[in-house]
Amino acid sequence: MSLPSWRETATRAAVVGYLRRITEPDGLDFVPVVDRIAVFDNDGTLWCERPGYPQAAFLIHELGTRSAADPALAERPVVRALLADGLAAARGFPMDEILRVLIDLHAGVSPEAFAEAVTDWAAGYRDERFGTPLAGLVYAPMLELLALLREHGFRVFIVTGGGVDFVRALSTELYGVTPDDVVGSAVVVEMARDEGNGVVLVRQGRIRGPANEGAPKVVNIHAQLGVRPIVAVGNSAGDREMLEYTHGSSHPSLCVVLDHDDAEREYAYASASFTDPGAESLLDVAARSDWVVVSMRDDWSRVFG
Amino acid sequence: MSLPSWRETATRAAVVGYLRRITEPDGLDFVPVVDRIAVFDNDGTLWCERPGYPQAAFLIHELGTRSAADPALAERPVVRALLADGLAAARGFPMDEILRVLIDLHAGVSPEAFAEAVTDWAAGYRDERFGTPLAGLVYAPMLELLALLREHGFRVFIVTGGGVDFVRALSTELYGVTPDDVVGSAVVVEMARDEGNGVVLVRQGRIRGPANEGAPKVVNIHAQLGVRPIVAVGNSAGDREMLEYTHGSSHPSLCVVLDHDDAEREYAYASASFTDPGAESLLDVAARSDWVVVSMRDDWSRVFG
Repeated sequence: MSLPSWRETATRAAVVGYLRRITEPDGLDFVPVVDRIAVFDNDGTLWCERPGYPQAAFLIHELGTRSAADPALAERPVVRALLADGLAAARGFPMDEILRVLIDLHAGVSPEAFAEAVTDWAAGYRDERFGTPLAGLVYAPMLELLALLREHGFRVFIVTGGGVDFVRALSTELYGVTPDDVVGSAVVVEMARDEGNGVVLVRQGRIRGPANEGAPKVVNIHAQLGVRPIVAVGNSAGDREMLEYTHGSSHPSLCVVLDHDDAEREYAYASASFTDPGAESLLDVAARSDWVVVSMRDDWSRVFG
Repeated sequence: MSLPSWRETATRAAVVGYLRRITEPDGLDFVPVVDRIAVFDNDGTLWCERPGYPQAAFLIHELGTRSAADPALAERPVVRALLADGLAAARGFPMDEILRVLIDLHAGVSPEAFAEAVTDWAAGYRDERFGTPLAGLVYAPMLELLALLREHGFRVFIVTGGGVDFVRALSTELYGVTPDDVVGSAVVVEMARDEGNGVVLVRQGRIRGPANEGAPKVVNIHAQLGVRPIVAVGNSAGDREMLEYTHGSSHPSLCVVLDHDDAEREYAYASASFTDPGAESLLDVAARSDWVVVSMRDDWSRVFG
């Protein structure tokens, strides 16, 4: 049976029913294979984002390594706060100052070396609460949904507020999503020449465009994919515009919002937008828009694999 | 036999031999499927770019339609020159002024409406010299090469100096390359709300970043694909950096340059860079770098399908 970790609820029926409808060759709602595009948020949608984003854990880990070799760096108050409290340091320092420290960590580094740093860190990572590596933080029901979509001819893309090079270094192994199918926030990368006059790329110490949250998710989906999705899955206010854009497709669409209501097996919290903490709750938007809301507690028989 | 429109020359042997080497499971040169990425330039590499770029023909056609309904536009000297002489009007007017007229044509238009304008134009297009629609301007040997690469597990991307939304509107039908697998030059596209508060996209009257030629091809390959290719095919100085970047892969790579030396069946000309007309000839770079040079005249038994 498909979606084995999904309980036999109305939510599951809505997802399965949609896929049946749009793939019925003679049906009114049939969508050609070329238009079967699905977009998934990552943090809090495909993998657990609590208590801190995995990307923050990576950056703090890198900061620790760097500080151990650089006493002047280690003594800066913002660095000491980051190493002691992680992103909670944002309570005592302006976000700009924190971002500067974290972005500077890999300025001057090639994308290849950056990807290696990510996979090296990931190989040693264990979640404090669950004791698992990163793969253990991926929602098993979501992996099943990715597989079911692909069985129905979909191409699946990740559209994350996280750093695109960070997610790309992990997405093939965790989700079967190749780097070209990941859209995300990015630093500027420039071309340079090495000693042998060969072409290389170098990460710069500055952000490329706005963070990939909210309206930029829609703009970047167009820039990178060039097509409007018909399936979108998200969990925070930063996914709202992407869901609305998908909802406006000329084809029948499926918009899914994940509700983190399971403190026992994961976490219970209301997801906010990273860039606009005061934005309307996505659950309220979903209710008004007749989107499918997935209750982690009620709709999933298990959360992790 | 594979590559039926390629003659039995050393060029063909180099291409076929490379593909055999990197797919031999126990060979020293084996490349995992996930890393088999090929990038192709479009104008002059996949389809004929002479006497004018097909995209220029599209824009002049659109300018004609617009001028017929707008006498004030029709009377502007730059517009009259464009309608009379096409891009040769650049001899009498600054390129900036010409670009402004052409970009303004679709400012305020949605990407969907733009794509429809492209396919409408393409449906009626006939090449003056060959009398064919656009599909007749595609090089049959290159379509065979795309097919052979895919048979060997490659994913094939187009990296064009042309407008990305223009090429995306045609690439699935002409090349079997879906929109997300096209990298190109772009105008800024912004998100907006329609009367019903739905999310829509609107093309703006300004260019997004530098044209996708030279070093920007490398930067944009990283931004959109996130991986370094192992096969690159091009024909002009604007493809040089993309070829060098591919050449620098840690895997065995294949760099191919198409030489337009067949005035009888196509055109004979030295391809220059669009952004730097004084750049070194790509054929000279290819000779120095030991890349594979394809002579259209000698290596292909036919040019068009």
